[in-house]
Amino acid sequence: MNNNKPKEIKSNLEYLRKLFIMPDSPDKFIEFGHDLLEMIHEFFQEKGGIHSAITLPELSDIFDQTAVPARPKLIKDVLSEIKDKIVRHSVKVGSPYYIGHMTSAIPYFMILMEMIIAALNQNQVKIESAKASSFVEREIVAWLHRLIFNKGDKYYEKNIQNHRVALGNVTSDGTLANLTALLVAREKAFAPDGDFPGLRMAGMERALRHYGYSKAVILVSKRGHYSITKSANLLGLGEENVISIAVDNDNRMDLMKLRNKIKDLQKKDGKRKIKIVSIIGIAGTTETGSVDNLLEMADIAHEAGAHFHVDACWGGSAMLVDEYRHLFTGIEQADSVTIDAHKLLYCPMSMGAVLFQDERDLRYIRHSSQYVIRRNSVDTGRFTIEGSRPFSCLKPWASLKIIGKEGFGLLFKQAQRSTDDLKMILDNCGNFETLNNPQLFILIYRFIPGAAKNQLEIWKKDKSKDSERKIRKVNNLINGLNIKLHKALRRDDTSFVSRTTMESTPYRPQKIVVLRAVLINPLTNRPILEEIVSTQNRIGMKIWKEFKPVFYRISDCNIQDPDIMGAAPYPV
Amino acid sequence: MNNNKPKEIKSNLEYLRKLFIMPDSPDKFIEFGHDLLEMIHEFFQEKGGIHSAITLPELSDIFDQTAVPARPKLIKDVLSEIKDKIVRHSVKVGSPYYIGHMTSAIPYFMILMEMIIAALNQNQVKIESAKASSFVEREIVAWLHRLIFNKGDKYYEKNIQNHRVALGNVTSDGTLANLTALLVAREKAFAPDGDFPGLRMAGMERALRHYGYSKAVILVSKRGHYSITKSANLLGLGEENVISIAVDNDNRMDLMKLRNKIKDLQKKDGKRKIKIVSIIGIAGTTETGSVDNLLEMADIAHEAGAHFHVDACWGGSAMLVDEYRHLFTGIEQADSVTIDAHKLLYCPMSMGAVLFQDERDLRYIRHSSQYVIRRNSVDTGRFTIEGSRPFSCLKPWASLKIIGKEGFGLLFKQAQRSTDDLKMILDNCGNFETLNNPQLFILIYRFIPGAAKNQLEIWKKDKSKDSERKIRKVNNLINGLNIKLHKALRRDDTSFVSRTTMESTPYRPQKIVVLRAVLINPLTNRPILEEIVSTQNRIGMKIWKEFKPVFYRISDCNIQDPDIMGAAPYPV
Repeated sequence: MNNNKPKEIKSNLEYLRKLFIMPDSPDKFIEFGHDLLEMIHEFFQEKGGIHSAITLPELSDIFDQTAVPARPKLIKDVLSEIKDKIVRHSVKVGSPYYIGHMTSAIPYFMILMEMIIAALNQNQVKIESAKASSFVEREIVAWLHRLIFNKGDKYYEKNIQNHRVALGNVTSDGTLANLTALLVAREKAFAPDGDFPGLRMAGMERALRHYGYSKAVILVSKRGHYSITKSANLLGLGEENVISIAVDNDNRMDLMKLRNKIKDLQKKDGKRKIKIVSIIGIAGTTETGSVDNLLEMADIAHEAGAHFHVDACWGGSAMLVDEYRHLFTGIEQADSVTIDAHKLLYCPMSMGAVLFQDERDLRYIRHSSQYVIRRNSVDTGRFTIEGSRPFSCLKPWASLKIIGKEGFGLLFKQAQRSTDDLKMILDNCGNFETLNNPQLFILIYRFIPGAAKNQLEIWKKDKSKDSERKIRKVNNLINGLNIKLHKALRRDDTSFVSRTTMESTPYRPQKIVVLRAVLINPLTNRPILEEIVSTQNRIGMKIWKEFKPVFYRISDCNIQDPDIMGAAPYPV
Repeated sequence: MNNNKPKEIKSNLEYLRKLFIMPDSPDKFIEFGHDLLEMIHEFFQEKGGIHSAITLPELSDIFDQTAVPARPKLIKDVLSEIKDKIVRHSVKVGSPYYIGHMTSAIPYFMILMEMIIAALNQNQVKIESAKASSFVEREIVAWLHRLIFNKGDKYYEKNIQNHRVALGNVTSDGTLANLTALLVAREKAFAPDGDFPGLRMAGMERALRHYGYSKAVILVSKRGHYSITKSANLLGLGEENVISIAVDNDNRMDLMKLRNKIKDLQKKDGKRKIKIVSIIGIAGTTETGSVDNLLEMADIAHEAGAHFHVDACWGGSAMLVDEYRHLFTGIEQADSVTIDAHKLLYCPMSMGAVLFQDERDLRYIRHSSQYVIRRNSVDTGRFTIEGSRPFSCLKPWASLKIIGKEGFGLLFKQAQRSTDDLKMILDNCGNFETLNNPQLFILIYRFIPGAAKNQLEIWKKDKSKDSERKIRKVNNLINGLNIKLHKALRRDDTSFVSRTTMESTPYRPQKIVVLRAVLINPLTNRPILEEIVSTQNRIGMKIWKEFKPVFYRISDCNIQDPDIMGAAPYPV
């Protein structure tokens, strides 16, 4: 025992121990909690300053402590540090003016759920550290499974709490959910066979050799989420072996192109064949919200002997509401489907889920260890990629109860109304061009002043080589304009839309810079949308002044003018 | 517009909208929060019933709703459902009597942090949805990096907020952290080279072919966490290619065996060589808390041209305290290190981190997409396996400030004291055998009544073949006894230790069933430990009655008795 200041050490340990017990009179704690909520409430109520005016270099100076603090601080001091340094400079993702990403407002009861999750601190990996919560997880997994595959009462009564199988996994996010689906698909494609113990044991190289394949590929449309290439990297398939299929005018996979590509792949590559591990349908693309033709894709995939995976991370929750179900026809024939709770289930960051039509599929990746998740245990961790996991599923479990199918119906109706409103406001303005028929609350468009827009229309009708060349030049110019506008909007910071580049607009194959709005915040309304468009129009017209002279030179000249070609200094 | 009951629909939407706004007078919310915390507080204060008495089939009956609820419920009704069905039947992982897993009590201010994280709902993937929080993340990543690699002020001043590089990633847990490290290691081993675009683009098979290897392996001790084999599966290396190196008597990798294995691997396998992708050191094994000889391993790994990874998910945080640093000597020579916040940083489930010595290493897996994490952006998501991620790092960031290095010093001293106390109590009892010299708060032991223990000692000295055989038989018997005891303890449920099976006890290579205690809850004290041991002894002695006759038959007989061989009906 150390004799230096034992009194002080002892009293400090007592202080620390007290931190681990909810105070017997929790007034102080409640007071903190109250202040915190007030503070965050006020922060979100402030108008404007979506991203806070502070610059990134200024933030770098605030968070510049390069070593762990030595001396302890009081909780209240750290809380006010959080208030001054962090809350003030956070992004108001819950603001009705923040319509640029899938991150949105959440119902306030979610904060209560997070309190419960943290206070219980269950670890979902294992029944010994997660009892009721393991059953809650199986219950919500069954709900989601049924929503997609709808196999009937008997099936769910049998499997909902059957620990020998897993209808799916709760994951940390959609990327992990897609990765899980593709891991299973890969193992099914290279399953144990005679002496060959399966890819999972033997590795990619021996698997290809055993089955006589030259390589293994995944097919997804050009709208595929980047988690698919990430998965191909992780799984040792190689990003090159994600084959991107062009989309039609509605941003759905072009099935003719898919069929041709499959025929192509089925020809032998030298001496060996190519294995199609998975064909992936998208139910709500990240950029445009579009849903692939899942029904036909299911047939094509199964005919090609591929695992049919549907990435419904964005749109899947819309199946809760009858009037959206038709979009998803065929999804019940998927082998696996992924869905995110932090998107259209309005949960806080982050929770994904992957569901398998065949409840035995997750056995392909089942694992065990001596000290946790023993072979014959009931532990959820046998089937998951992640190890330790929080009780995140409480959030959608509660929100599905509190909001209910009916409530989600109303929320989605409101989201649809906002989407329609925004499209109408933009179309009526005259200085914008909307570029998709939004299916699931995502609208892409660009700023293009009336004069330029009309000129493009004229050239489009004309169809001469010269007009085509001019259209390309003007589009390059408008691309630059929209990049500049987006940057100016970020500086203005009273609202937020995102920006991307698309090859599948009416100007295809030219890449077009577009603004992107995701309209799911139920607090967003028509006046707010009008305000946002008016700001974009005002700032856009101001920037247009610099671009206008170049536009008129393009419009007037017939020959290729090197100066004009150089007039789009914004690489896209 | 639908004319059916528009009033009702409108009012419902209004109700839903209100859910998304913190109530202007948040009394109701505060009241809920208060009740919740009281409820969870009471739950944890209850003595006994660690896992609740409810059986798994009974829980199956509670959570048996096979479809999403149609009608919404009131928040207060769902909260009381949570109270009755979930909280009551959760595992009291925060109880000082729960000493079986790494999941433990957390300081109550963590609940405040979770409230902030949920209310802000930042998405760490991208600066557009996470502003200050991206900088907080880089700051704590720098703290952890410095704790391990300690590169000096200039290095951290330069890199802490340098968005062109990443010192490491925050991940959802230790498994994802280890996976990230091994993904980087794999890519470094098969980096782009001339026409070859790197494994990530080309896949495993082409990578091996290009570099002329027959396979790629990972070396880790028999104490390696199961996330390593999981990673080998995911990465397409194959679980078979995780080579398990035996440990010494202190559960540290046997370096002689490692050297021999490397020599073996460096011989050509037919025409082609074998690539050692990574050699993994463990700094705090899951089963015994042991730390490998990292200094020597670093040399061996680098000489073998392998990425040296250290899995410090369990122990890494102990480096915060000077008196533990010597255990980790050599860790600063690792290429990557993983560490978990939900273990010795006392954060709620779950957050891991991976740190790379070379701040450029994460570039091997950098990715981008058009609509998020553009190539030249400052977005954290460029480097991570996960996509959407919560602002989890606020929790360790705050706890390192509130508890501070000093506070962690006291917490670990208390954990050490509990570990020493438990060892002493067990050794003094006479009916237990402790089986490791605990380094980081994990003790393994078994119940073995004095008579059997003494007899084993006598046989051990004797060293005859016959005695060896008898030792094996008695150990089989005691294995069965400890499995039965562990099950009985689970039924008693006044305390909790875990159970595993080890090949590296003094009885090696025989596999021995052991009980495992993890002693990090600062509320656990000596009287509690005495109570736990006394319960184990009482129940153990009761079970021993069934086993005793067999033990005496083994002790008295010299010949191999088939009945006795059959006396260990508990396969291990």
